[in-house]
Amino acid sequence: MLWYNSFAMDIQKLVRPNIRSLSAYEAKEIPCLVKLDANESPYGFKESLKAIADVETNRYPDPEAKALKNLISRYAGVKPDCVLQGNGSDELIYYLITTFGGPVLYPTPTFSMYGIITQAIGEKRIEISLDKEFDLDMMRMLKAIRREKPKLIFLSSPNNPTGNCFSSDRILEIIDLTSSLITHHSSLSLVVVDEAYQPFSSKKGFLPLLKDYKNLLIMRTLSKIGLAGLRVGFLIADREIINEVNKVRLPFNLNSLSQAIAAEVLTDRKTLRTQINAIVSERENLSSEMEKIRGVRPYPSEANFILFRVNDSDRIYKRLLQKGVLVRNMKNVVDGCLRVTVGTTEENRIFLNAMKKVVKLAGENK
Amino acid sequence: MLWYNSFAMDIQKLVRPNIRSLSAYEAKEIPCLVKLDANESPYGFKESLKAIADVETNRYPDPEAKALKNLISRYAGVKPDCVLQGNGSDELIYYLITTFGGPVLYPTPTFSMYGIITQAIGEKRIEISLDKEFDLDMMRMLKAIRREKPKLIFLSSPNNPTGNCFSSDRILEIIDLTSSLITHHSSLSLVVVDEAYQPFSSKKGFLPLLKDYKNLLIMRTLSKIGLAGLRVGFLIADREIINEVNKVRLPFNLNSLSQAIAAEVLTDRKTLRTQINAIVSERENLSSEMEKIRGVRPYPSEANFILFRVNDSDRIYKRLLQKGVLVRNMKNVVDGCLRVTVGTTEENRIFLNAMKKVVKLAGENK
Repeated sequence: MLWYNSFAMDIQKLVRPNIRSLSAYEAKEIPCLVKLDANESPYGFKESLKAIADVETNRYPDPEAKALKNLISRYAGVKPDCVLQGNGSDELIYYLITTFGGPVLYPTPTFSMYGIITQAIGEKRIEISLDKEFDLDMMRMLKAIRREKPKLIFLSSPNNPTGNCFSSDRILEIIDLTSSLITHHSSLSLVVVDEAYQPFSSKKGFLPLLKDYKNLLIMRTLSKIGLAGLRVGFLIADREIINEVNKVRLPFNLNSLSQAIAAEVLTDRKTLRTQINAIVSERENLSSEMEKIRGVRPYPSEANFILFRVNDSDRIYKRLLQKGVLVRNMKNVVDGCLRVTVGTTEENRIFLNAMKKVVKLAGENK
Repeated sequence: MLWYNSFAMDIQKLVRPNIRSLSAYEAKEIPCLVKLDANESPYGFKESLKAIADVETNRYPDPEAKALKNLISRYAGVKPDCVLQGNGSDELIYYLITTFGGPVLYPTPTFSMYGIITQAIGEKRIEISLDKEFDLDMMRMLKAIRREKPKLIFLSSPNNPTGNCFSSDRILEIIDLTSSLITHHSSLSLVVVDEAYQPFSSKKGFLPLLKDYKNLLIMRTLSKIGLAGLRVGFLIADREIINEVNKVRLPFNLNSLSQAIAAEVLTDRKTLRTQINAIVSERENLSSEMEKIRGVRPYPSEANFILFRVNDSDRIYKRLLQKGVLVRNMKNVVDGCLRVTVGTTEENRIFLNAMKKVVKLAGENK
């Protein structure tokens, strides 16, 4: 076919405009000895892998993930039809925005996927900076909500990467304002409280408030408590909301293996609780040890990671990596900050020792 | 809060209009003895479950699914960056429509998810009936392509639920027409040939044509060849296309367990091939046995299922189920037809015996 030239085809002209300016999420694998960059639990569930012995690989998974949803609903104190399973919380964010559209509002800095997915779907993003204490800036939040009438508001609490919980009364004020069409200024919005890190928090979560607020949605994940490899997240909300979001869910979004293992792990809450307690206790240790290092300023954390400020964060990030310790460089997110995931006692010790050396070195090189 | 009434909140007003008229995909579990409704392989890979022994549940999966993609790229004869992994092909359809938008064109009857996902995302669907031989109706296809300028064209070949391959020259004509902006009438479209059932086909697939057509994309899945529970699908296309679709992919869309087991299974192609050959041979047997039953008209199949016409399909569907045999009722899709998945020799025998009885009974009750 002489008239045909495959190289003349411009793919860019075919993609939607919002995709052109989007970059793929970078999740590079960086070789290291101690991996403290991704807010994973240091503890796995090797024993629970046995739960897949009965899985028939050739059969489609249970599209309703019944066993798993029953366990979650019992835990959350809601009916199973108030729970929706996701291939990680990421997928639930996708589904929420597909179902309700935008604008999508969230404070920054926060979990990056709210913005990335909103852009991928082509909806409007509204980003409101947190205040100096990394709490919700209510003046700006309420103003933006009234002006922009977002369909969805994402509040990660405890927040990634800052580690703190937002003030409960501020979250409540937002839920209140957006729950009603009655008051003059309010818009009707769904407020998604992303409680990915709630298991590590000393503050009360929002599950008990579900019955009072129809526009409150809660996201939970198993990724931070030892099952990141499985990709299991949950949305918990009013059943009418779950019904709508379920319409855009792919019928077999949660594979059989993850369903089986997650159900097994959730049945034995004791091991789970022990691991979480260990991480919380390690976090407190780690935090107080970090405070003793001159030039290191850890922020208070209710999560399984600690955000900390250092002088010359880029250099310290690289030097830590040279010593085999991988943390997350928060450049472009919280300037001058790094984020370290709480590891095992031994991993934290290695991190602390490495920190002491690289901070000292950085000081000397000044 | 006296002014607040949670029940006053109308969720329907919040959802996007295209979602309101959408129903959730029904994938009910129907109890049965012989399950021949979902185009699953009757053979599993129990042994390969061992491959997860080294999976660390607490770590996020490899976001690039490198090991798996390497195996697929070698099989397909393309570079790894021409392959994109999906949580089943379903997810890849989602991503394609998110990336390129609509209109989305496909012949009908075909795989239902093209239409469901297009509606969920809110893009325009263009459905063109197949001709009487279940082949592409070129007059109508070409006219619709010229008029509607679809961004994406989905062609399932072998087609579900009809079982036949579309004529290669017709598919080629569509790819040709839509690959160029030069000719006067053509639009620029991406043509996705969904080869989910290609492993069972005697016809050549379209992989060898990838190098000639930049607008040709091929979808493959492991769901029909023994790994439906894992949710693993692939998109194979020009790297520039893969790059764009990868932007909207969730970074950890393929869990660690499925990655490990799929890689293990794909390494041992011999077992895979043996199973596929057995299914093809069973299909031929099944088909000729069905032809012998008076009142049953099986259509030719290049897939792992057989579409067949009966008198009073509703009643026969129910009677089969009473005998413990679950097939798919194609009512509303191909009127008067049922679809049976090829099972093991024993399962097919049970199905055939049940068929003989219920067809005879139906005849007597007339």
